[in-house]
Amino acid sequence: MERFTQSVSFDGRLAKYDIRGSIAHASMLGRQGIISSTDSRKIIAGLKEIASEIESGKFKFRLELEDVHMNIEAALIKKIGPTGGRLHTARSRNDQVALDLRLYLKDEGSTAMALIARFQQILLRVASKHTKTIMPGYTHLQRAQPVLLAHHLLAYAEMLGRDRERFQEALKRTDVLPLGSCALAGTSLPIDRAYAARLLGFKQVSKNSMDSVSDRDFALEFLSNSAMLMTHLSRLAEEIVLWCTEEFGFITLPDAYATGSSIMPQKKNPDVAELVRAKAARTYGNLMTLLALTKALPLAYNRDLQEDKPPVFDTADTVSASLSILISMFPKIKFNKKRMYAAAVGSYSTATDIAEYLAAKGVPFREAHEITGKIVLHCIEAKKPLDALSLSELKTFSKKIAKDIYPCLSPEGSIKHRTSAGGTSPKEVARQLKNSLQS
Amino acid sequence: MERFTQSVSFDGRLAKYDIRGSIAHASMLGRQGIISSTDSRKIIAGLKEIASEIESGKFKFRLELEDVHMNIEAALIKKIGPTGGRLHTARSRNDQVALDLRLYLKDEGSTAMALIARFQQILLRVASKHTKTIMPGYTHLQRAQPVLLAHHLLAYAEMLGRDRERFQEALKRTDVLPLGSCALAGTSLPIDRAYAARLLGFKQVSKNSMDSVSDRDFALEFLSNSAMLMTHLSRLAEEIVLWCTEEFGFITLPDAYATGSSIMPQKKNPDVAELVRAKAARTYGNLMTLLALTKALPLAYNRDLQEDKPPVFDTADTVSASLSILISMFPKIKFNKKRMYAAAVGSYSTATDIAEYLAAKGVPFREAHEITGKIVLHCIEAKKPLDALSLSELKTFSKKIAKDIYPCLSPEGSIKHRTSAGGTSPKEVARQLKNSLQS
Amino acid sequence: MERFTQSVSFDGRLAKYDIRGSIAHASMLGRQGIISSTDSRKIIAGLKEIASEIESGKFKFRLELEDVHMNIEAALIKKIGPTGGRLHTARSRNDQVALDLRLYLKDEGSTAMALIARFQQILLRVASKHTKTIMPGYTHLQRAQPVLLAHHLLAYAEMLGRDRERFQEALKRTDVLPLGSCALAGTSLPIDRAYAARLLGFKQVSKNSMDSVSDRDFALEFLSNSAMLMTHLSRLAEEIVLWCTEEFGFITLPDAYATGSSIMPQKKNPDVAELVRAKAARTYGNLMTLLALTKALPLAYNRDLQEDKPPVFDTADTVSASLSILISMFPKIKFNKKRMYAAAVGSYSTATDIAEYLAAKGVPFREAHEITGKIVLHCIEAKKPLDALSLSELKTFSKKIAKDIYPCLSPEGSIKHRTSAGGTSPKEVARQLKNSLQS
Amino acid sequence: MERFTQSVSFDGRLAKYDIRGSIAHASMLGRQGIISSTDSRKIIAGLKEIASEIESGKFKFRLELEDVHMNIEAALIKKIGPTGGRLHTARSRNDQVALDLRLYLKDEGSTAMALIARFQQILLRVASKHTKTIMPGYTHLQRAQPVLLAHHLLAYAEMLGRDRERFQEALKRTDVLPLGSCALAGTSLPIDRAYAARLLGFKQVSKNSMDSVSDRDFALEFLSNSAMLMTHLSRLAEEIVLWCTEEFGFITLPDAYATGSSIMPQKKNPDVAELVRAKAARTYGNLMTLLALTKALPLAYNRDLQEDKPPVFDTADTVSASLSILISMFPKIKFNKKRMYAAAVGSYSTATDIAEYLAAKGVPFREAHEITGKIVLHCIEAKKPLDALSLSELKTFSKKIAKDIYPCLSPEGSIKHRTSAGGTSPKEVARQLKNSLQS
Repeated sequence: MERFTQSVSFDGRLAKYDIRGSIAHASMLGRQGIISSTDSRKIIAGLKEIASEIESGKFKFRLELEDVHMNIEAALIKKIGPTGGRLHTARSRNDQVALDLRLYLKDEGSTAMALIARFQQILLRVASKHTKTIMPGYTHLQRAQPVLLAHHLLAYAEMLGRDRERFQEALKRTDVLPLGSCALAGTSLPIDRAYAARLLGFKQVSKNSMDSVSDRDFALEFLSNSAMLMTHLSRLAEEIVLWCTEEFGFITLPDAYATGSSIMPQKKNPDVAELVRAKAARTYGNLMTLLALTKALPLAYNRDLQEDKPPVFDTADTVSASLSILISMFPKIKFNKKRMYAAAVGSYSTATDIAEYLAAKGVPFREAHEITGKIVLHCIEAKKPLDALSLSELKTFSKKIAKDIYPCLSPEGSIKHRTSAGGTSPKEVARQLKNSLQS
Repeated sequence: MERFTQSVSFDGRLAKYDIRGSIAHASMLGRQGIISSTDSRKIIAGLKEIASEIESGKFKFRLELEDVHMNIEAALIKKIGPTGGRLHTARSRNDQVALDLRLYLKDEGSTAMALIARFQQILLRVASKHTKTIMPGYTHLQRAQPVLLAHHLLAYAEMLGRDRERFQEALKRTDVLPLGSCALAGTSLPIDRAYAARLLGFKQVSKNSMDSVSDRDFALEFLSNSAMLMTHLSRLAEEIVLWCTEEFGFITLPDAYATGSSIMPQKKNPDVAELVRAKAARTYGNLMTLLALTKALPLAYNRDLQEDKPPVFDTADTVSASLSILISMFPKIKFNKKRMYAAAVGSYSTATDIAEYLAAKGVPFREAHEITGKIVLHCIEAKKPLDALSLSELKTFSKKIAKDIYPCLSPEGSIKHRTSAGGTSPKEVARQLKNSLQS
Repeated sequence: MERFTQSVSFDGRLAKYDIRGSIAHASMLGRQGIISSTDSRKIIAGLKEIASEIESGKFKFRLELEDVHMNIEAALIKKIGPTGGRLHTARSRNDQVALDLRLYLKDEGSTAMALIARFQQILLRVASKHTKTIMPGYTHLQRAQPVLLAHHLLAYAEMLGRDRERFQEALKRTDVLPLGSCALAGTSLPIDRAYAARLLGFKQVSKNSMDSVSDRDFALEFLSNSAMLMTHLSRLAEEIVLWCTEEFGFITLPDAYATGSSIMPQKKNPDVAELVRAKAARTYGNLMTLLALTKALPLAYNRDLQEDKPPVFDTADTVSASLSILISMFPKIKFNKKRMYAAAVGSYSTATDIAEYLAAKGVPFREAHEITGKIVLHCIEAKKPLDALSLSELKTFSKKIAKDIYPCLSPEGSIKHRTSAGGTSPKEVARQLKNSLQS
Repeated sequence: MERFTQSVSFDGRLAKYDIRGSIAHASMLGRQGIISSTDSRKIIAGLKEIASEIESGKFKFRLELEDVHMNIEAALIKKIGPTGGRLHTARSRNDQVALDLRLYLKDEGSTAMALIARFQQILLRVASKHTKTIMPGYTHLQRAQPVLLAHHLLAYAEMLGRDRERFQEALKRTDVLPLGSCALAGTSLPIDRAYAARLLGFKQVSKNSMDSVSDRDFALEFLSNSAMLMTHLSRLAEEIVLWCTEEFGFITLPDAYATGSSIMPQKKNPDVAELVRAKAARTYGNLMTLLALTKALPLAYNRDLQEDKPPVFDTADTVSASLSILISMFPKIKFNKKRMYAAAVGSYSTATDIAEYLAAKGVPFREAHEITGKIVLHCIEAKKPLDALSLSELKTFSKKIAKDIYPCLSPEGSIKHRTSAGGTSPKEVARQLKNSLQS
């Protein structure tokens, strides 16, 4: 039974938040005269000692005391006597654990945001080195049109920007003090919740005590934002896996971030990318767990909520490990510009430019498409690249074609002309890069 | 093959958004001189005709034309001739479908917000009728402390408030024009994306074309916010199911919202609540679908994204149906105040008040707890309620107890004293109610 | 990097399986003359020493050696010298880890089956004490018809029976030796896979080496069967939570399995049931994780598969903890027969019996339903139970009603007559019980 | 309300099962004398007429009649008068809908099995054409060792074999008649469930009526088996997407199964594969829906269960559409043997063979690995393939190397020697193929 209902085997990482919360609570109780200021001081001193015992690894958590809260309270009472028993005045484990988890997720949310920002900076830095690197842009994993590598990388910076915004917004709803909601109905003792909030750095005080002890929206938001972030990282991871195949050959992984095989020294397995990709799945599972767990729970606190911690902790660890490893690995990836360029040159990937050229000359788009199709087909049969066609050859397909078509036919030309907002032209990419660096 | 890859069997509901987007696009193309203004006008007129044919049900969607976009374009060309083929200039199905889905979700997001707001108002209205209705507050589904029904209902208003906030924030990221990203790299034609954005009422223009055609974050956010909302509704639904059991007997459902049995006319099955509870699960599944679907997709567009629509549409329908039915049913629920009160009176649910009374008199909380426990045990054995104990009896447990303890022993007294911020005292609940009505 | 890619922090629990597999492998290598029999014996002796070091807690797993396999191999080489390096002949980590996980899940699957069988026995034992205990059967959580508690409990025994069957069937597909598939293509060395299978107690040898190193179906099946099992346990848990509310009052939990409150000694929180209910959600999340993780992985081994272990281990622990706690708690639950009976008596729950009585006398069922509805309505208005109606009163509703209707009107009578196969009549329940005890 | 609780908008596809069930029920009622044989015949005739009206599309389902069952019963009564009302004798919608869903899933399960078997045959047929086609085997998407294409395809045949087994086993648990369980407690009327089972082709009769009306395990199993099957198909789909990139170039898709672009006629998008990959996600979501939906439902029937149909129907459609399209597309894929072979030749992918050669000559495996690593490194620096090294060059790395090493150095040689059971040698693959064709 003890083993089944205990949570101390996993909630130990809340200890520092629990103590921080208890110190604020004791301080408030003393200030309000609910306990004497001597008692308040004694309690706070005791808690600080326990905090340093925990930090130094000397503290022994005991399974039979069930959870982190009871372990700390028991240690306090042992240390300072019955006065320790006054700490829990006007408090319940229900609002206490909600407080701890909010403090924890304020920290983890901030950590995630900081790591996201750092990874964005790295993407921008790498992008700024590749404002002339040409590669194929893919749709359906088929080469479609040439793009700049910088443009490609900026797409990820955009995704991360949204991730950061979401974590930021979720933090606002996490930054709400539940303490003082007690078991579910509040208390008759003259507590000052706003004061406790100030001490703990909360912007708001929760408005309804029954909601407050059973609300785990802030945890669900963390899990959901993490799942989206990890989806983005999994996409990048997938591209790393693809790009370092011998078939693509677009990148070379730094030795330190690839596992080789003693037997095939040339082989570099993209383990980091594979693991990041896999870890995305883990955050989906954790989100599913907490949704299914909170479904249909009547008000107010139910013990089911104790099981919120494993998925939350696991996701927090996953997010920070995944971002950290990418932050250190990504700048060390070597981009093989020649392979990228060669891939962009083949494949008639400037065909769309011919169509747009014709459209600009007044040919209806669907017709322009058809003409272009015929030109490409002709080239395939003739085994020539598009820019090897003579003007007279081109004119047999459409009279509207003139000499000025040639600049469109090379990857460089194609890219240069895609000047629409958000497009891949060097000028536009430079602008995107500049704006991103400033935001 | 046609049947397998088509989406027109489910994306028909995007038709009006598709046409709205095409009208704006044609208008922009004409203004920029990319097509002639005559052509632009002809296209727009044709699209408007198609729109009204669709609205009146006269339009025939054809499976072999694969999707809603091709159906409309084909109809346009049939209607106005080859000029119709100019509409797709400087556009691709990739940015077009992203546009349609964003327009759709801007609408659905707003609808959800409006319905949430209405349901909040209803909860507040019902709560304002029950600022004196006393019921047991539960933890672990065990009666814990008396609370006001108004307080209980306000907890749900709080949850919905957070839901509304989340939908609002997600809308901001949905309100971004992807049109002009074309297939993935932008275009060489002189489009004006900001103008198209203004015409369509978008606040922003997407910044990176590769991100833009493959981004489904806005759909994931809608699904994730819906899953959280439905979790809240499932909790309320669970309480409705519980409260209308004969065992609880707290509410009577309106006949029109319960299925009876011809054979047991007294029986009222809470089908609506059960279905809302079940539908929460459906929104979890839809969220999982879209997460797993977008995991590890390389840039930019992949056909996988076509499968984003079924989960999005299904969740949008689920959310609006669930909120709508609760909006119409909830005000007609009859609360059986007597049953609620009776449940609050039994169960020694004011025991905590004794402990707080003692704490207020200086007894350490853990000790106060113990004393209270002994008093309750005594009452159980003596088969008496707490307030039937004489003062001398009470004093045998603690000398600190005086006459002024009696007001704490009734549910009314217990509630009255829970004046802490967010607590269940009438004054505090009135304040919560007033603030909620204003926000 | 090391910390990110390592798995030794969680795969340590595979150590004993890894060693068991290695001993069999070394033995086979020796027998086939791939290594000398002296080397084979030395390796086996070394491995056995390591096994006992691990068991006694003396073995130090080192993070920098990445995983459990490398830790053991390194220890072996340290212990017996370069000969240890011969162990990995004709083997790769790819088939090795697949082997370990299969051995682990053969054990965990058997454990689950044994625990399920024990819990079934307990349900049957408790049921056999309650073959006369009458309670209301519910639909929509509304009292519908009286049933025997034994009948209700046997429903869970049925569910568990299916669970056991599924675990059994999955075991068959788990019981397949992957060793000898090597990295992905098999080996040129003259191994004898059938011999290794015999040594390790596997019924089959995997048929295709590429499938074999990347197949995790057996793990998915374990997770999916566990999710279904936990769904069943969550249903029982929900009923325990409901039944021990004061409103239902059907059961009293044993003190040792409920957390009380020092302050409200009468209160017993059904924490165990709440946690079991919550843990079901956890197994859903784990299943989702492994599905999303294995989606779209190309052949053969990918590092993503390393992340299969955390969800598998967590579910195995959850299943065995949940079953174990129910096995020890359930027999100690006290059923409050009087409360159950009282609930069955009220509510006109024998109305269906009147309808069936009429149908047996030739009244069309829909008409019989209507007549019954009128009788019940009359009783509600007259505030009488059904069996308080006189025969003449009854006859005003239908001439077909005679004296022999009375035995149908009590819960006992109602139950007694439900003799259809699988029904709730004592005779039928006794038969079900007997059959279940034999199977 | 009507619109919210109705299911007829989606359960229409159960109509034929509902009628089949009703015919059997009416027949049994007549045989048992519960209704007259005249009535029984009239009912059956009426139902058959309705069946043909539905089949011919003449039947009008009405939303206000809520579900498929009530629609059919109402039509029956309209057609044959009050006698139609006798059909529902000794039956409830609870056991009726359970029956319909089981009949439906028996069909869908069989369909899935048949389609799986056909797709297996196709894989085997294609494999049998490629028993000499050499390609690189991948781990981590890095070329690892040469394998036969037949071997690679047989891996999928293995996966499908397990899928089929699982569907088969689930069918056994689906093939159980719930009819006669009535609302939840059975009936007092003298029904013969075994007879109804025989008429409907059920192997078993459900054993416990309370379990029977609330059991959806058979649906969960269908969803879970489908999710695993779709995972396998998603893996194959991923490989198709990869293999038809220009970078891999291993396959050419049949024109009819790839969408091209009018503008880039050479481009073939693997839409089918992308959609199959995406649809796997959908089946995960459906499984999550039904798990979360059934979690913590108390006995017996709850209206939540009505929501089981959408995920079940959607998955059944997804499975059969995905298998069908692969069945017709796969045989038309063209394998570009030269590209495959060229990829297998490069990359020093026979390095492992050198190591195994050395091991066979008595060099400890870890040492053999090291020596091989040095040889490969030497070749990389010298820009030579392995088989371009002279014997004297090779001997500088290890004296154990002799002339007989050369046959190991080519892909053909490497493959030929991997004769271990399940390995990639032609002989072994031929054996696998033969066994698979027989099973």
